[in-house]
Amino acid sequence: MYLSDAYAHLAPLERLVVLVSCIGHDLDHPGLNNSFQINANTELALIYNDLSPLESHHAAVLFTILKNPVANILGTLTDADYKEARRKIILCILATDMGRHGEILAKFKTFADAFKYDDKAHRDMIIQIIIKCADISNEVRPPNVSEPWVDNLLEEFFAQSDKEKAMGLPFAPFMDRDKVTKSGAQVGFIKFVMLPLFELASKALPNLETPILGPIREALVFYQEMDALPKK
Amino acid sequence: MYLSDAYAHLAPLERLVVLVSCIGHDLDHPGLNNSFQINANTELALIYNDLSPLESHHAAVLFTILKNPVANILGTLTDADYKEARRKIILCILATDMGRHGEILAKFKTFADAFKYDDKAHRDMIIQIIIKCADISNEVRPPNVSEPWVDNLLEEFFAQSDKEKAMGLPFAPFMDRDKVTKSGAQVGFIKFVMLPLFELASKALPNLETPILGPIREALVFYQEMDALPKK
Repeated sequence: MYLSDAYAHLAPLERLVVLVSCIGHDLDHPGLNNSFQINANTELALIYNDLSPLESHHAAVLFTILKNPVANILGTLTDADYKEARRKIILCILATDMGRHGEILAKFKTFADAFKYDDKAHRDMIIQIIIKCADISNEVRPPNVSEPWVDNLLEEFFAQSDKEKAMGLPFAPFMDRDKVTKSGAQVGFIKFVMLPLFELASKALPNLETPILGPIREALVFYQEMDALPKK
Repeated sequence: MYLSDAYAHLAPLERLVVLVSCIGHDLDHPGLNNSFQINANTELALIYNDLSPLESHHAAVLFTILKNPVANILGTLTDADYKEARRKIILCILATDMGRHGEILAKFKTFADAFKYDDKAHRDMIIQIIIKCADISNEVRPPNVSEPWVDNLLEEFFAQSDKEKAMGLPFAPFMDRDKVTKSGAQVGFIKFVMLPLFELASKALPNLETPILGPIREALVFYQEMDALPKK
């Protein structure tokens, strides 16, 4: 948001929306993803009818916190601004469901080349794209910062698939400790998820090439080299 | 479903889905619509992020009831059939949000003329259309049956707008006891909501003309004549 021209184009309310959405987008995350929630028929899946149960819960938790007057950082907004901020924050947080990644990208693709800030639908989309980029931005940072987080994430994934195996539930290959290597997982994720998103985003958000896409490509090389090493 | 050829085209599981959805589609309805939930910041609006709070709740209540083994009429289905039934029941119940009426009709319009049961998306749509028709089918029945229900509905609407006025919330003109007449409300609803839906539905569901569209048009005449009488 700050590096591209988005900061200048977005209204102060929209900048606030993006920041609050970032803060709230994973609140009370149980470390078990939507597939687990749905396949294990958890309370969250039941409440949310299998529809983005985690993201729906994160947003609901955020606004439950904001109900407390001492915590309500949106409390000084006018009614109209609050309503608009609430709608957009919900939009942003729900957009972080990676199960909707393809759907959201396909929609963004239809107007990324002719992106314009004076179209309400385009503005609603760009804030979703910004939070989606932020959500999976780990590898924009140098490996000494990002790599420990990859280790943490893989630990979370492995713990989930262990649980799923024990419960007789389906489990994803990318979470299976018997199949996944850190380098292989990262090469695939950067190539097929991260780069396509950030490259598409950079059509509407200029100036990302050097500070953002550069480091991502360096991270890809870093993990490709790691992947080429003989496995233990 | 029974009068058209849909019954023959739908699989037994889909017929069950439609019936269970009908039974469950308004469970635990508080008599105050989504606009009220959202504008009054109710617990349901908070949980469901203002997204079809009532219909999401109805579906969640249904599946909460079905968790009880003695009540689980889907309990003998295979895992795969249960999963598919759950997905479709949720789809059907969420389709009864009249706030999505235009969206759903617009989508149905794109393939109503070339409707085919061997297209999964078309099958998913027709069960939503069937439950939407059933949901607002009151005026298919003769006036001596349907009219008391109109009185009940208007009472619910007036009670809501009274509450909204007292709470300083926005209220809809069609709920305002100072503006609404039964005949005027019914003429508008039949003309602009009911007939367009049923006429579009009849493109994919044959044989509705005499038993369904006929009575709706008679109901329209009934209320138009009532509307032409001098008002008290």
